[in-house]
Order: sequence, then structure tokens, then C-alpha cells
Amino acid sequence: MRIPLLCLLVRSFILLCFVEIVLSGFTSSFIRSEWPSTDIPLDSPEFSTPEGYNAPQQVHITQGDYDGKAVIVSWVNMIEPGSSEVLYGKLKNQYNLSAQGTHTNYTFYKYRSGYIHHCLLSGLEHNTKYYYKIGTGNSAREFWFETPPEVDADASYTFGIIGDLGQTYNSLSTLEHYMKTGGQTVLFVGDLSYADRYHDNDGNRWDSWGRLVERSVAYQPWIWSAGNHEIEYKPHLGEFSTFRAYIHRYATPHVASKSNSPLWYAVRRASAHIIVLSSYSPFVKYTPQWLWLREELKQVDREKTPWLIVLMHAPLYNSNGVHYMEGESMRAAFERWLVHYKVDMVFAGHVHAYERSYRVSNINYNITSGNRYPVPDKSAPVYITVGDGGNQEGLASRFLEPQPEYSAFREASYGHSVLELKNRTHAFYNWIRNDDGKSVPTDHVVFHNQYWASNTRRRLKKKQPNRQINLIATY
Amino acid sequence: MRIPLLCLLVRSFILLCFVEIVLSGFTSSFIRSEWPSTDIPLDSPEFSTPEGYNAPQQVHITQGDYDGKAVIVSWVNMIEPGSSEVLYGKLKNQYNLSAQGTHTNYTFYKYRSGYIHHCLLSGLEHNTKYYYKIGTGNSAREFWFETPPEVDADASYTFGIIGDLGQTYNSLSTLEHYMKTGGQTVLFVGDLSYADRYHDNDGNRWDSWGRLVERSVAYQPWIWSAGNHEIEYKPHLGEFSTFRAYIHRYATPHVASKSNSPLWYAVRRASAHIIVLSSYSPFVKYTPQWLWLREELKQVDREKTPWLIVLMHAPLYNSNGVHYMEGESMRAAFERWLVHYKVDMVFAGHVHAYERSYRVSNINYNITSGNRYPVPDKSAPVYITVGDGGNQEGLASRFLEPQPEYSAFREASYGHSVLELKNRTHAFYNWIRNDDGKSVPTDHVVFHNQYWASNTRRRLKKKQPNRQINLIATY
Ligand SMILES: [Fe+2]
Ligand SMILES: [Fe+2]
Repeated sequence: MRIPLLCLLVRSFILLCFVEIVLSGFTSSFIRSEWPSTDIPLDSPEFSTPEGYNAPQQVHITQGDYDGKAVIVSWVNMIEPGSSEVLYGKLKNQYNLSAQGTHTNYTFYKYRSGYIHHCLLSGLEHNTKYYYKIGTGNSAREFWFETPPEVDADASYTFGIIGDLGQTYNSLSTLEHYMKTGGQTVLFVGDLSYADRYHDNDGNRWDSWGRLVERSVAYQPWIWSAGNHEIEYKPHLGEFSTFRAYIHRYATPHVASKSNSPLWYAVRRASAHIIVLSSYSPFVKYTPQWLWLREELKQVDREKTPWLIVLMHAPLYNSNGVHYMEGESMRAAFERWLVHYKVDMVFAGHVHAYERSYRVSNINYNITSGNRYPVPDKSAPVYITVGDGGNQEGLASRFLEPQPEYSAFREASYGHSVLELKNRTHAFYNWIRNDDGKSVPTDHVVFHNQYWASNTRRRLKKKQPNRQINLIATY
Repeated sequence: MRIPLLCLLVRSFILLCFVEIVLSGFTSSFIRSEWPSTDIPLDSPEFSTPEGYNAPQQVHITQGDYDGKAVIVSWVNMIEPGSSEVLYGKLKNQYNLSAQGTHTNYTFYKYRSGYIHHCLLSGLEHNTKYYYKIGTGNSAREFWFETPPEVDADASYTFGIIGDLGQTYNSLSTLEHYMKTGGQTVLFVGDLSYADRYHDNDGNRWDSWGRLVERSVAYQPWIWSAGNHEIEYKPHLGEFSTFRAYIHRYATPHVASKSNSPLWYAVRRASAHIIVLSSYSPFVKYTPQWLWLREELKQVDREKTPWLIVLMHAPLYNSNGVHYMEGESMRAAFERWLVHYKVDMVFAGHVHAYERSYRVSNINYNITSGNRYPVPDKSAPVYITVGDGGNQEGLASRFLEPQPEYSAFREASYGHSVLELKNRTHAFYNWIRNDDGKSVPTDHVVFHNQYWASNTRRRLKKKQPNRQINLIATY
């Protein structure tokens, strides 16, 4: 994957000065023919348990602070609590540092979780590879991660964007394709394990999912956001709590951004300010999430983090028949702010198909008067739905026809996206389809930064429309 | 008040057969000249504490089950926990029955609450006056209440509707006017004490409010819904919980309607099915409130309870400049259901002015295509905003101009409403303005039931428009 992507970047640069903005939407005719969306059996090697008594499993890391100098290491011991200590250091097999974590567990109906450990490694250096070790004796396991560069306007960094992953062979395909792209951190847009789709809301499928994705997330942070499949509100099982498994298992650094909930928070990483929202928590005016977002948006400093990225689960703009307009409630609450603060991209999941919007807004909509439809708006974000990770529910293949004017590109395939922030002005974006198992870059966009774009706008010239490279920023 | 209201009813009956439906909206020119919205001082007699050591205070009752055969009696003991027992019976001073409650308390920043008791009296007979006694010795206090008639399509019953009450002299005026109307139960549409507006979110103002309204709510149930002033999310005070005081103090019978939260629930009372929603809790698809409402609406049996009434705090239709369109998120989630189930009326508060809509809906709104504006819809509810109880924030006097087509009547005054369900087909409704201290019925409507209306529609004849009596049901 590395070489085709590099070729693409070169092509993108060449095209950059003379491509036209494509204003008519495109619906891909690609139809997937293989790989039915059935879950990988629990006894498959993809879910294999590490050797050694009570060995740590489901290892995952995420950013542990606001600016990327800390990491939260999490894992599960299945038999007994075990140690919550993490040994780490810059040299392999030489762990001169250690940190002490805590552990927790939970029950859900008939399921009893293992011992879930969370350990914060703080005071890390930027741009540095760290090795870490968890567990003891012959059950010990070793991994590594790389810290991001210092927060800086021109710090280049590559994010993967994955949503609605689940644990089918398609999920595995998405994961393996992503791991070949050079992505350094995953922005995960909700719906992780789909354990809630199993009989009795089977917690074992949280465990198997943790083992499945360990191959990536033990080595690089995934930035989590919660989807509807994380809610797990099951009155018929006597389970009235919400997000119980998710909150126990997936720690987030919400306190560092002054959030009172792990479900919404922000991190800064390289040249990006990433805001995570919760589609299924209160978000209207006066609620904690609304108050928090209002303050967090004021903290954004585009001089330091030019790229302002928002994650949520339910998309605000999507033209698939499935889940159509489910994001309207949040759009009514937040769209005005997203435009006012010139958010670069809003990534969402939920709809099991890929779609990208033009820069549009519908903020003049007014129940009494005013504009009715979304209109082109150069201050608006691009809305991208990447709910196509490959879970057991299958694809959402019925798009609204005709394609609405706000919709730029849509295709009902599995896949994931990669966003390469090059500097303060430019980013390369690709959506990569799982083409019957093959990894095929399919939707390419060169993003101009929404804050710095005005400095470069005059360089743009008009030329022929081009389906392959869409330039989004300045219309 | 009794006599003028009766006169009005007679007039209403006479007019019923020949009034015209008024389709042009009316904005009242009434301007209030007296009674500034300042809170009653804490040491005023309106807040007086009952005599006797640790005497029960802030006594309030609410419906305790689904169908009105139970009552929850609540009160606060300020000095020590005291007894949670309630003695009760059908004869004054002869308490042959008793029930044992529980008590709780809470802290909020520097405030420590008294001992809050809740005691369920169940197995009551319908249409019966009960006397009850709480506290002991010379601190004992005695009250009474009347149970509603059995749930029945033609059971007549009178509800008051009060919102955003607060604790000013205007609040007291509203309360006193309501108590003269013959209302049997209050539907309270949120924003109770406004304690959150005080320095350090002063819990003492919850206590004083409890003493202020005891004069009514110790004798008849108030059906509670929560407003934004109940949220009390105060990070700067280290208080990150939501609805803490409200949930501790105001019990609701949510379990009886299979709700997992005291913030949303339903009760049936006489000929009404009353659904309470929470504007500031999750309500989008997949969330507990959404799932609950979907099931509860299926339980509605218009053959038994013809009158389907929904309460919430933030209005879905309101044309005041203050809080304009804050209900859009909930409208996007629920309006379709309200129309499908032919809800009779939706009562809300929040906006400190009175407004009533025509029967309109905006459910064909579609981000891509379809109707843009609210359109007349005979299946739609009438939306009534009664956020004019009289709190310290004052009136919202700036209406959108011109008056939108969906708005039937609006006036920025303090007041409350009274809804008299006469039988399965007719109800008389009045909004009663606090006219510089006087109680003046101002907006009168005869409602035809949304389920039974079709049987009576053919009786309606056209005549001259009439400002005083609006007939809402059949256009
Ligand atoms: Fe989803
Ligand atoms: Fe309010």
C-alpha cells in the first residue's frame, strides 16, 4: 500500500494547481460480490488468547492527555486481577520506567468481565518510540508505541478513520488494510464490537473484539467515540445502565479537556485538534456536553492546531436510506458552531456505507422562514461517513435518488479512510475500499485547511473537472 | 373565580355550534405594568416554617402509580431524620391506615439538605377524599387529598398547567389564582425553584420553594417534569452531577410506566393519558427515553383515555425571540410520533410568555426535499407554552414579527392554564393572565378530542370569526 499511496500523493501535488472543484455528486456503481458479513467464529485464530497463565490480553492504548505526552495502556486479565503495573522505556527489553494503574470489572446479565486494567504513562517525550511490558513471568507481553510530534501547525501526521468495525472477516480485512497504510493513530467513530447483537448481549464478544484489534491498537492509539451499539440498554435483561461495557473497557482522557464524561472530550495531536462528541448523550442547550463543547471550541488555536476535526457516530449529512436524518437533532444543536469555527472535517459512522459531502450548511433553516436546503458554504465542514468497517449487519446499499446536491461521493462498500496532514495548509485524504478483499483507494481529496486556506486561495486556478481528485476548501 | 369560569363554560357551550375556526394569529397588546419579578425574601411569611420541633415541611404529593390509586407523599424534616410514616384514612382525625416510607438527603457544594421523605400510599379507592398525617406529637401536621375517578373515557377532570414558577410575588400570584380555579391536579412543565440562579446554587431556595407551593401541592398532586433549571450542572462548584436536588426531592411514579428514569414517565388520570418527557436527557433514536416513548405510545388506549397530553420543558413550537428553536432537536426526534398518535395537546414551559399554536406539523421536512414550513395538520397536537409562572428572570416580551402562521395566540404576561376535560369529546381550556395581580381569563379554546372528534365533526357549522372562543380540532 505504501507505494501506490506515495504515487497518489505525487499525482495530487501535480494536479493541485489546476484541478477544478467538482460540484456534481458521484454515486459509485461498484458492487461487492464476496465476503458475506458473518462474524468470525469465537474459536478462530484471529481471536486467539495469548499463552501463559492469566496473560494480559485485549491490549489497547489511547492518548492519555491533551497534547500527546501521555498514553493510557489498557488490558484484560481473565483469571485473576494480576498486576496493574506497566514497565516502559525507550530501549527494547530495558524498562527503566514504570507506572501503576488500577483495575476494574463489571457484570452484565449473565456475563462477568475479566479484570480490566488502565494505566497512565505520563511525561513522555514527543516523537519518541517507547517499548512497554505488561504481565509477569512467562505471561509477560511486550509492545511498543510512538509518541506524536509536539503540537505544531506544520507537524505532519497520518490518521486512519474507522467506524462500525465489528468482528467479521470484512472487519479483519479493513483492519489489515489500515495497518498497511502507515496510519499513526486511528480516529474511531463508534460501534466497536457489536456484542449487543448477540444472545443475552454477550460480553464474550467484547473480549474477542479486544483480541481482534489488539494487532493495531496495542501499538498505536485509537481515539474512541461511542456509537449506538455501545449503549447496551437492555431492560428485558434487567440491565438499565448505558455504556457500561464501553466505559469500563475504553478509557479516554476526558478530564484533560475538562469534560465530565468519558463520552465527550478533546485531544490535540500533531497539527490536529480533535473533538469527540457523543451522539447518544444529552447535547441540547444547557446540558453538560453542550456547555463543554462551547468552551472547548473557544480553546481551539488554529495557529497551533490548524486542523479542526470533529468525531461523532450519527452523521449530520448523509443521503443513505438507512438511518436517514438520524443526526438531525444534533445538527440542530451544533451545526452553527461547526460553521462558525470553520471545522475542517466531521467524521461519523453509523451508516454502513461511505459518503462524503461538499462544504454545505443548513444553518439559515428556520422553522418560520429562511433557507430550506443546505447551501454551499465555504466555512462549513466536509461531512464524511465511514460507517463501513465491516460489521455483521452488512452494507446499507440503498441511497436516496437522485443524489442530493450536498453529497459529493458515495459508495456502499466496506473500507476505511486515511487522512494525511502534510502541513498547515494541505492534507491528503483517501477512502480505501475493501474491493472483494483487495485494498483500493477510491475517493481522493486534497483538503485545504479552513483557517489557512485564505492565504493560498489566490493560487488556485480553474481547469477541467476531475473525478479522481476533488479539491475541497475554497468554493 | 368559580363563577366567571362557569359563565364562560356556558358561553362556550352556546358558541360551540356556530363559532368559526380562527386561522389568523393574534398577538395580545396587553402590557403588564406592576409587580417586578423579584424574589420573595427568605424571611417573608410566604416561606414560613411550620411550628414544632423538626416539623415536616415542604409537603408535596404526586400520583404514585399508573392509574391514580396511589399517591406519593413527600416532605422534609430539617433537624433530624424523623419518621417516614404516613397515617391516613377516609375520616378526619381517624387514621386507620399507615404506610412506611424512606428518607434520603444530599449535599450540593456548601449546602446540605434536610431529610427528604417519600412515602407511597397505595391501594387507594377512586374518587375518595383521604386525610393524612405526618410527623409526631406537637410537630404533627395534617392534610388531605382527593383521588381521581377511575380511568374512564368520560371521566371529567380539571388540570392546571403551570411552568417556570420560581418564587417571586408573581409566582405567588399565579399560585393563588390557580388555587381558585377548581383545578384538581397540576401538570407542571419544568423550572421549579430557580435555586440555581442564586450564589453558590443555593439549596435553601429549594426549601423555600417547597414551603411556598405546599399550600397547593400538599392537597393535590402535581405531575412533575424537569426543566433546565433543574439540571444544576455546576463544574465551577465541583458539582458534575445533573438533576441532583430535583431527583432527591421530587419523586415520580416512573417505574409504574416501565421507565428507567424519574425524568420521563406516564400516568393515566381520569380520561387523560399524560406523558412526561425530559428535554435535557438523551432522546434520540436508540436512547432509553426514545425506546420508552415508542413503547408507551403503544400502550395508549383512547377508548379508555381519550385525552392524550404530552408535557416537556422546551417547546417544539414557539415564536418568541427568547429560546427560539431550542426545541428543534426534540422536534426532529418525536414530532412524527406526536402526529401519528394524534396527541391532543403538548404543554411546555421555558419561554416566559404564553403562546398557543394551531394544529400544525412539519414532519415532511426533509433535509433533501419536501415541505419546508409547518403546515396545517388536523392530526397534529396543539402546542401550548405556559412558561409564564412568574420567576425572577422576568418576561420574554420580544415575539418574532410577523406572527408565524402556526401561532394562534401569544401574549407576554404571567399566568397559568386550566384544562377542563368534560367528556370524551370536549374539553374547555383557558389561559388565565395575572393582570397586574388580577386573574383574567384571556385565551379560551374548546378542544375537540383528537380521537373522538370525527364523530362530532359533522355537527360543526360555520359562522363569524370570534376572538374569544377558538375551536380547535377539526380543520
Ligand atoms: Fe451505529
Ligand atoms: Fe427553562
